[in-house]
Amino acid sequence: MKAQFITLEGSEGVGKTSNLEYIKSLLDASGIDYIVTREPGGTPLSEALRDLLLGHDYKGMADDTELLLMFAARAEHVAKVIKPALEKGQWVLCDRFTDATYAYQGGGRQLDVQRIEGLEQWVLGDLRPDLTLLLDAPVEIGRERAGKRSEPDRFEQERDAFFNRVRDCYLARAEVEPDRIRVIDASGDLASVQQQIKQIFDPLLAS
Amino acid sequence: MKAQFITLEGSEGVGKTSNLEYIKSLLDASGIDYIVTREPGGTPLSEALRDLLLGHDYKGMADDTELLLMFAARAEHVAKVIKPALEKGQWVLCDRFTDATYAYQGGGRQLDVQRIEGLEQWVLGDLRPDLTLLLDAPVEIGRERAGKRSEPDRFEQERDAFFNRVRDCYLARAEVEPDRIRVIDASGDLASVQQQIKQIFDPLLAS
Repeated sequence: MKAQFITLEGSEGVGKTSNLEYIKSLLDASGIDYIVTREPGGTPLSEALRDLLLGHDYKGMADDTELLLMFAARAEHVAKVIKPALEKGQWVLCDRFTDATYAYQGGGRQLDVQRIEGLEQWVLGDLRPDLTLLLDAPVEIGRERAGKRSEPDRFEQERDAFFNRVRDCYLARAEVEPDRIRVIDASGDLASVQQQIKQIFDPLLAS
Repeated sequence: MKAQFITLEGSEGVGKTSNLEYIKSLLDASGIDYIVTREPGGTPLSEALRDLLLGHDYKGMADDTELLLMFAARAEHVAKVIKPALEKGQWVLCDRFTDATYAYQGGGRQLDVQRIEGLEQWVLGDLRPDLTLLLDAPVEIGRERAGKRSEPDRFEQERDAFFNRVRDCYLARAEVEPDRIRVIDASGDLASVQQQIKQIFDPLLAS
């Protein structure tokens, strides 16, 4: 089968890092040639843009600027890493992609979703991931896993509201594109999450 | 009259810097409140992006990346400097703006002009300069002013071809928008150029 472009999505505390390792072990076991990359980042320039976006030097940047920088990092990543790998037949396993822009900038920060759609069209044309794994868990679980007390203070309440919007946006996108975006219940233990991931990958790796 | 958004354009060696000083003296003499700024740049973040764009660290960036970064710097500059100044009633005198993207990236580097138009629409909507002064001179004059010999070597020939495309693009844009883009013959001495600039500014400053 053709090389697959697979992305991993989910908000904080859903276990993206450990499950990424599990997916790598599945691909390794099947002898798949693949690369692992992440967004924002994945190229030297894109990582420099990641620093601009996530650092504190330019926190007050305009919404449009933030979206343009996010998609500049993505354009470079697609042109220099993702497309060349796929063209060589390598699978691409990417920690976050455009769905995260919709979820974090559109959902969480409540930027105009139509603005995001306009840039997505300009930058990506019709390039989309073949498969997106959405690790989903209630926001409270993520907070508790991070060792916080169960009664949130005001800052944590604001944080929870933000991540609830992120989560809702991810889930809404999965409803619109159920074939591409597969929702994984990440509220249980690691073994149950891995079982769900394996069920999704088994047919893909068998074909 | 409402605060004017004025841009200064032209390729290398046409005397942009000294004529910018002359325009400032005209505005000063009329007691106009104005700011002077430049592109790419004009804000701390936009200047950081200018360094990424013009420096040598990321010379091989993809065309789309270059355009997105150029317009990210512009979006920030417009949101943080140009629009607030105009809204306060300050005139804005800007060394280069979007016409330069068309001329350098579209004309010189031959990137897809429709791609530039798409981003211009996304970033600027219908914001355009009220007046653009295009300082125009044959490329050979700019090269000779820079102290080069008149018989160009191969590198200089390539450079000349590039700047001829930049110049042609600027002039083509001035033909399409003659009311906004005023072409100034910058091939003569400074006094003759200043006289042309004064003739354009006199009615603007008298009203």
